[in-house]
Amino acid sequence: MGKENFVEQIADINQDFPQWYTDVVIKTGLVDYGPVKGTMVIRPYGYAIWENIQKELDKRFKRTGHKNAYFPLLIPMNFFTKEAEHVEGFAPEVAVVTHAGGEELAEPLAIRPTSETIFGSMYSKWIQSYRDLPVLINQWANVMRWEKTTRPFLRTSEFLWQEGHTAHATEKEALKETKKMLNVYKEFAENCLAIPVITGRKTEKEKFAGAVATFGMEAMMKDGKSLQAGTSHYLGQNFAKAFDIKFLDKDGVQKYVYTSSWGVSTRLIGALIMAHGDERGLILPPVVAPVQVVIVPIAQKKPGVLEECKKIKRALKNAKVRVELDDTDSTPGWKYNEWEMKGVPLRIELGPRDIEAGKALIFRRDTQEKVEYSLDNLAKSVKQLLKTVQQDMLKSARVRRDNRITYAQDIQDILYGVENGKFVKAGWCGCRECEDRVKAETAATARVYAEGEQSETCAVCGRKAEHTVIFARAY
Amino acid sequence: MGKENFVEQIADINQDFPQWYTDVVIKTGLVDYGPVKGTMVIRPYGYAIWENIQKELDKRFKRTGHKNAYFPLLIPMNFFTKEAEHVEGFAPEVAVVTHAGGEELAEPLAIRPTSETIFGSMYSKWIQSYRDLPVLINQWANVMRWEKTTRPFLRTSEFLWQEGHTAHATEKEALKETKKMLNVYKEFAENCLAIPVITGRKTEKEKFAGAVATFGMEAMMKDGKSLQAGTSHYLGQNFAKAFDIKFLDKDGVQKYVYTSSWGVSTRLIGALIMAHGDERGLILPPVVAPVQVVIVPIAQKKPGVLEECKKIKRALKNAKVRVELDDTDSTPGWKYNEWEMKGVPLRIELGPRDIEAGKALIFRRDTQEKVEYSLDNLAKSVKQLLKTVQQDMLKSARVRRDNRITYAQDIQDILYGVENGKFVKAGWCGCRECEDRVKAETAATARVYAEGEQSETCAVCGRKAEHTVIFARAY
Repeated sequence: MGKENFVEQIADINQDFPQWYTDVVIKTGLVDYGPVKGTMVIRPYGYAIWENIQKELDKRFKRTGHKNAYFPLLIPMNFFTKEAEHVEGFAPEVAVVTHAGGEELAEPLAIRPTSETIFGSMYSKWIQSYRDLPVLINQWANVMRWEKTTRPFLRTSEFLWQEGHTAHATEKEALKETKKMLNVYKEFAENCLAIPVITGRKTEKEKFAGAVATFGMEAMMKDGKSLQAGTSHYLGQNFAKAFDIKFLDKDGVQKYVYTSSWGVSTRLIGALIMAHGDERGLILPPVVAPVQVVIVPIAQKKPGVLEECKKIKRALKNAKVRVELDDTDSTPGWKYNEWEMKGVPLRIELGPRDIEAGKALIFRRDTQEKVEYSLDNLAKSVKQLLKTVQQDMLKSARVRRDNRITYAQDIQDILYGVENGKFVKAGWCGCRECEDRVKAETAATARVYAEGEQSETCAVCGRKAEHTVIFARAY
Repeated sequence: MGKENFVEQIADINQDFPQWYTDVVIKTGLVDYGPVKGTMVIRPYGYAIWENIQKELDKRFKRTGHKNAYFPLLIPMNFFTKEAEHVEGFAPEVAVVTHAGGEELAEPLAIRPTSETIFGSMYSKWIQSYRDLPVLINQWANVMRWEKTTRPFLRTSEFLWQEGHTAHATEKEALKETKKMLNVYKEFAENCLAIPVITGRKTEKEKFAGAVATFGMEAMMKDGKSLQAGTSHYLGQNFAKAFDIKFLDKDGVQKYVYTSSWGVSTRLIGALIMAHGDERGLILPPVVAPVQVVIVPIAQKKPGVLEECKKIKRALKNAKVRVELDDTDSTPGWKYNEWEMKGVPLRIELGPRDIEAGKALIFRRDTQEKVEYSLDNLAKSVKQLLKTVQQDMLKSARVRRDNRITYAQDIQDILYGVENGKFVKAGWCGCRECEDRVKAETAATARVYAEGEQSETCAVCGRKAEHTVIFARAY
């Protein structure tokens, strides 16, 4: 392989987006395929993104009063049958342990696809009185859903996620929690991932199996398709009744609790890649980038160059910038390509002439601009620039997305919109037949209700519209 | 339940240590039993300890050049057969997935009991040249080993751990890594958990299935039994040959790599409980305590008391102390009992008279001392005192342990020692028969070699001693 032109190994983003995605995730070392079909190995560069995501989210969960815990991986199969919709939704995807310790088990055990049931069984034990409420617990865990078609980060049999499970005395409080966590996700997606998201309620067809209502956040990928980046479910008393989670209220009456659950997963890494990447590879927002700044020395064998680079590296480290100095033997051009493919937000180029002039060139991955900065106070400039990049990435993603939202009056409009990579808003009567027809004729699904918007008529049947829905093809 | 005397609910630590342990882990809310036999739910108070352990260890792993990654939970069964000793050691404990997605699998899949095999399979793909070495990867994960007899934290079918897996060009480097990580564990155990540990090589019988040599760290519990708190394995080329992990060396020759692996688990929480706890419950060292300081107001309805308590809480929070203010309706006495049982290192007692005098009483959980401190600069005093408690806990644990190490000349001595809750050092000829006889006659096992000590004769057979071994009954 010729080192100078290795960027050509990535498929053209405009010609073959799926192949571009696969090339990028594998060639930047984010992920590799595991030995079992449908599994992935999250390599250090990919896992470092997940660690940054975890750190930011965990801070937010704790700030909103949640505590972490860890519940078992294995769930008795009969737990799933206790909530009728839940078993229907998850049973077909479950992986089952039938043997352990050299013996066949008396009852087969499911590897958790999600943990409402096992949280429910413990909550029924722990919750006795109104004084025990609310219970606000989150867990970081692996889950497993056996899928026919898999793609790294987007859909794999095993993935990492967090799942919050809360119990409350009243419907009002549980619903408030459901929406609060949706907003936590939205704020995080925008400020940390630089991905603008549309949040809203999902249709009955698209809701979580066992929920009363599911709220989702949808992000537009560069091909115009939508990616469900997180969900928050209001579960009403469905799981409380299935698992007998009751409390003695202040008025002396035994009541069922109201529960919520909410989660985001390593899918977010897929969202990052497809929301920001370009023909050269990844573009990572500084808040979650494993490496925020790479220093590339020019003519590195000339006296003083590496010393100055190391000095800058130390200064950036002290300023808590995640920085790498690439002093390998490759040419600067090869290094540029490699670190651009890896999506590092800023590159500092420094050669003998720069040092003499007391300047450094800084290249921005997001805008491809090169700007000269004084070596004095470089760490401060870099920190400021990282903030700017973070904000600008959100702004441009928002402009890109807003330019690709359209309105449809009929099903032809919807088809035309999604064929052109757009999110399409359209009136919907609320009936399942019309929703299914959209799917059948356009391959688009109802993503979320467009909140606060009112359409006159259903784009499918022409009857009175109950909701305005955002339709899109989705991952 | 009478609130005032609930401490009596814990079994007497001197009469029934196992029951004391069970009472403490359940009643302090560290853990609960999961619905599947042998599983545990780590509750928020227990998980917060694990989070503190993770934070401290992860910092140390990264400082020593390791990166985190995530490998799949499911491993093809045939991977285990590739390393002969490994399969013998782990196959009997494996949980097996035979069905998934509604179908029977063509090949059964093991839930990882440990991940040498799957790391090996990926390393053989990633490692080509000496330039790719060393590979220094760690993962935080759940693992499963089906056990007949289980106890929360100490032995459960599923547990949480970290497992480091490294690959090196030379034997020397791999061995150096193995010992380096053992020392990282030791420093962590002593400075963060306040547990003095004895590190050393394990006998062939006690080594990890598939290792060339296993090094362990052993901690003394309050009943005099030993708990294996961490292990570091030098794997030689065993897994490199089983998984064909080869690299092209500088000299142009294809060679097998040398690998190491090392791990600690949620067992460490069990170690904390049993190394420090007393008749009143837990005693947690400040570095890993979820709550470092609890403020208990006296006569809290008197004007000004709660306000002053809140002021102190804010000051401590700002000083990054993990602090709780207990302003519930219970009596101070009840609160004292509860927070003592939970092992909170410091309690600040504050009533109207204290406020007037500008003082607060601080109670140390570890020494049961109460000392008066000025309210001026209280946060600073508290931070200093937390450091003192941390150091003193290690010191007293060391004294306790050192007083319970003895030497044996013969097998009767060994029996006498372990019956009296001691670690017993004895000469050993190195043969399996003598090791087995000690086990059969004393229920003690060889924990580690006592490094740098030389005995004359084997305590069992009287032949020349090859090693001095520390024998103890163990968890």
